[in-house]
Amino acid sequence: MTTATLIDGKRVAQDVQQQTAARVEKLKQAVGVTACLATVLVGEDPASAKYVAAKRRLCEKLGLASVFVKLDETTTTEQLVDKINELGRDANVHGILLQHPVPKQIDERAAFEAIPAQKDVDGVTFHSFGTMFYGLPGYESCTPGGIIRLLDAYDVDIRGKHAVVIGRSAILGKPMAGLLLNRDATVTVCHSRTVDLPELVKQADIVVAAVGKPAFVQGDWIKDGAVVIDAGFNPGPKGNIGDVDFEPASERAGLITPVPGGVGPMTLAVLVEQTSIAAARQAGVEI
Amino acid sequence: MTTATLIDGKRVAQDVQQQTAARVEKLKQAVGVTACLATVLVGEDPASAKYVAAKRRLCEKLGLASVFVKLDETTTTEQLVDKINELGRDANVHGILLQHPVPKQIDERAAFEAIPAQKDVDGVTFHSFGTMFYGLPGYESCTPGGIIRLLDAYDVDIRGKHAVVIGRSAILGKPMAGLLLNRDATVTVCHSRTVDLPELVKQADIVVAAVGKPAFVQGDWIKDGAVVIDAGFNPGPKGNIGDVDFEPASERAGLITPVPGGVGPMTLAVLVEQTSIAAARQAGVEI
Repeated sequence: MTTATLIDGKRVAQDVQQQTAARVEKLKQAVGVTACLATVLVGEDPASAKYVAAKRRLCEKLGLASVFVKLDETTTTEQLVDKINELGRDANVHGILLQHPVPKQIDERAAFEAIPAQKDVDGVTFHSFGTMFYGLPGYESCTPGGIIRLLDAYDVDIRGKHAVVIGRSAILGKPMAGLLLNRDATVTVCHSRTVDLPELVKQADIVVAAVGKPAFVQGDWIKDGAVVIDAGFNPGPKGNIGDVDFEPASERAGLITPVPGGVGPMTLAVLVEQTSIAAARQAGVEI
Repeated sequence: MTTATLIDGKRVAQDVQQQTAARVEKLKQAVGVTACLATVLVGEDPASAKYVAAKRRLCEKLGLASVFVKLDETTTTEQLVDKINELGRDANVHGILLQHPVPKQIDERAAFEAIPAQKDVDGVTFHSFGTMFYGLPGYESCTPGGIIRLLDAYDVDIRGKHAVVIGRSAILGKPMAGLLLNRDATVTVCHSRTVDLPELVKQADIVVAAVGKPAFVQGDWIKDGAVVIDAGFNPGPKGNIGDVDFEPASERAGLITPVPGGVGPMTLAVLVEQTSIAAARQAGVEI
């Protein structure tokens, strides 16, 4: 029996998309600028190609332009950096997304760092990481940024709450910790080396599971009334499932994200939102 | 009665200084390059002037060159950035330290970001913050970097331990969290908004107090045998004291830093160490 309130990520993502479409339209009206996202795909990974296609479709749906750059599997770091530099100089491009992962011969960090901070709408540069941790204006990693928007949409009071983040990846666990810290949560970051994870999760007012293991977080680890955010998306026997064992967790949680339909839809929504904001800022317009 | 073993920061700092002097000498012998730190002081704050003077004296003692740039209280952001850019281009300067704080009219972040990553031996740029959090080669914030060196010098096993960092400042609490996380600690960051701080500190295998309040951390918050690192340095009735109530804490801790003579000496030692490493890297020499 589910007693927790479900966090409807599809609905919140729709709201973010609508605001984005409105901002894009206003910017066109105001200064004739069409917000534009450049997507860069290196190699032939089918999942990556699918993700990039979804990003481009969403741009089209919301009135943004998009530029698609497809590079060979054998691309070198230098070639990729050159291409990103070119997009960085292109005044018609407002945001740059380099699809992760890139082929092994490429220094992905060097490629990310070639993205100018003002076009880093995917929040992957050290600069963006810094602004996320220091609470300064900038662009957020899209999934953690989306999680903050979910918490806000459901009026979760973050200040002073104990947030336990399970996972410490560069695009999820670590930036999530920074964003929660800057919203005045007490933040614990757990990972594969953590001893007695259940005991730590039991203390959490807010749990963010970003560990990439299906149904890993057990229901009896969840404190009564806690907010449970599941950023996992793992292949399961009947479709994808999250990192949290949903049914038992939802009997204890106050609020919980389903998988799918929770965190998932937010990532793309934040990407296009940040692209529209970047376009407005680069046009020098307050919208 | 003190039962904890005292961590002798003076001794560890001496070791780091000796290694630094040896590296500096080797670099001179190998390629005729003298490692050089540029210190930039803006305005008339007497404490800042004293800190900069101490840094320059240590450079001299260990065989490093130093360049001292003194700018007026009325310096603009643009003037300061220009000066830092000039030092960034100067091949004879290997490390740049901008003394914090700068006068109010200056955008300190913009000034920090003007320091090239390869000369950021004080670890203040977003780039350095990123490398600290991602565990990539780079330069560390000197005080947190010094604390890691203290833990290593006393063979503290960080992996899997629960570290509680009290404080979330840009140069101490936040980078400390990143460095501990990359050494596989489970990390909790607490701060002024944290509810039930004693309960969290009681769980810590490693406590880092960086809160700036004299004798704030109480002895009975310390778990038996914990490692207690006190980064505080507050004016007290009989000289400066730390953030930890030393006597009662030392009855429970396994290892503890005194104040003074614990963390304090490490900050300068790491600054010159990182300058010597930067000089070697910029000269393309493995030393």
